[in-house]
Amino acid sequence: MMAPPDGLLLGLDFGGTKLAAGLVDPRAGRVLDTSRRPTDAEGGAEQAITTMLAMARDLLEAGGAPVTGVGINFGGPVDASHGVVLTSNHVPGWDRLPLAARLSAALGLPARLENDANGQALAEYCFGAGRASSAMVYLNLGTGIGGGIVLKGRLLAGAHGLAGEFGHMTIRADGPRCACGRTGCLEALCSGTAMGRRAREWLATSSPTDRQASRLLQVAGSLEAVTGRDLTRVAADGDRQAQEILEGILQDLARGLANIASCLDPEVIVLGGGAAELGADQFQRLRALSEAACFAPLAGAYRLLPAALGADAGIFGGAALFLQP
Amino acid sequence: MMAPPDGLLLGLDFGGTKLAAGLVDPRAGRVLDTSRRPTDAEGGAEQAITTMLAMARDLLEAGGAPVTGVGINFGGPVDASHGVVLTSNHVPGWDRLPLAARLSAALGLPARLENDANGQALAEYCFGAGRASSAMVYLNLGTGIGGGIVLKGRLLAGAHGLAGEFGHMTIRADGPRCACGRTGCLEALCSGTAMGRRAREWLATSSPTDRQASRLLQVAGSLEAVTGRDLTRVAADGDRQAQEILEGILQDLARGLANIASCLDPEVIVLGGGAAELGADQFQRLRALSEAACFAPLAGAYRLLPAALGADAGIFGGAALFLQP
Repeated sequence: MMAPPDGLLLGLDFGGTKLAAGLVDPRAGRVLDTSRRPTDAEGGAEQAITTMLAMARDLLEAGGAPVTGVGINFGGPVDASHGVVLTSNHVPGWDRLPLAARLSAALGLPARLENDANGQALAEYCFGAGRASSAMVYLNLGTGIGGGIVLKGRLLAGAHGLAGEFGHMTIRADGPRCACGRTGCLEALCSGTAMGRRAREWLATSSPTDRQASRLLQVAGSLEAVTGRDLTRVAADGDRQAQEILEGILQDLARGLANIASCLDPEVIVLGGGAAELGADQFQRLRALSEAACFAPLAGAYRLLPAALGADAGIFGGAALFLQP
Repeated sequence: MMAPPDGLLLGLDFGGTKLAAGLVDPRAGRVLDTSRRPTDAEGGAEQAITTMLAMARDLLEAGGAPVTGVGINFGGPVDASHGVVLTSNHVPGWDRLPLAARLSAALGLPARLENDANGQALAEYCFGAGRASSAMVYLNLGTGIGGGIVLKGRLLAGAHGLAGEFGHMTIRADGPRCACGRTGCLEALCSGTAMGRRAREWLATSSPTDRQASRLLQVAGSLEAVTGRDLTRVAADGDRQAQEILEGILQDLARGLANIASCLDPEVIVLGGGAAELGADQFQRLRALSEAACFAPLAGAYRLLPAALGADAGIFGGAALFLQP
């Protein structure tokens, strides 16, 4: 990244379920002070903006050093070059809203806007696991699968701001139906949602003995309640059955990583969201599977790392928008 | 591309089956004079270099305007930044050969080296179908499948010079075995080699009536002789059976294009090699399939075009190495 500016940056993260704000010291690579509130979906975009502005002003008043810019991560598609939100799948009222201009005027600071996967990618490059790598890919496994590409410190936007939509690569042409309407997308096989579904399908067709012994069913309470997070946690605790279910998912994820490597030959791939919660053994297993899934000259050519920034990734992501060369 | 230099450029193309050289006028975007010889595989690298130098000197002596550089496309992996050939799968003696330095010294000209898929990608950007597009992908369907990525006029190298290896994206995890040892790679489904294999498989399991009426079998002479080129030609002539065989291949190719679009969001995808020989109807069919295969926001977002430079792509590719900003 370029040399960080003097002073602090304000990072704002508009998510589907929560709003987060924080002051970031870009030289130290640290979040100094944060504020979090749940998103009030019924209140729509205007309520979210009002709440976020109050959080931002509290932080600005409490902070000592001067703040030089406000960077915004938004959980949905944006037109980054114009600072405009395109829409939200979770909260009404966001269509074509010029969020950067609104917040810049209200806070008296220069403002920049990105979608959350791109912001998190840049955050991991500037402050996290992919620090200073020349070609970095970020892949987030959550409800869906998003991603971002950072080349020499800059986000690769693509022709329409859609580069890095790795969730909709086809891995198994005859695979399960995806939310996008197609079949066998990486997202339909390996998102947090897909992990939960695959675990429930596995259990539903398993033997009564397997079900009776299932630590996963005990933890979740019922078959219907099993989530992807339950699966990764129970597997991380060493449960053999959960690890067996996870194995098929990791194999597909490895194919997705191999496809990304074939396209981009990255130096580092950083995995965020549910994948960052894999236990150390499972993460190591994923590394081995992704080397085996790779076109030979690319096997082992990139480092596969869990995301380092956790819950503050969105706040760091806002700040990182001011650090592109 | 940057403003072309004054004078001419010498483009050299070392292929597995032929050597080609040509003088390129970069301002006019034209090849002025060319020379071609078959590659003598038994003569190895040294014989190829001797032959190519003789061809180059003939062109340089005959040409009027001053020549300012020699650009080399090589049909195999190279270390472009050091101008070194890594190896050849077809001709012995190429391992770690510093080809750019050798030709620069022999011809008294600055020399640059790239692998052929990257060179052809840059050629289509500078002189061909992808002229001046901000984000261009080139995909070549030949014996294998290679490719290149041109962003704002520069080749994307990746961390190890391997970006754009689209042939080894997994499309069907349970698909046919690829030459690389894995299964369901785009190359195993859609290369010229795979097209021929799929046509032969289709015919071998078809009804006696279908085989008797097969224009493809008549053209090829026998089942064993059917090639991918036969398939695209007979389909382009309007033969229904060949078009039916081609349909499944185009569906898989469309998935590959969709995967590339999901990663890179290009403005243009240029198809070279066998894909450039698809008839107009089949190319239009591929466009429709690739829109249907795409993640919705990307459907129709890129232009899909056949390569424009034909047999001179490698010569243009050499010259284009001097036109990167």
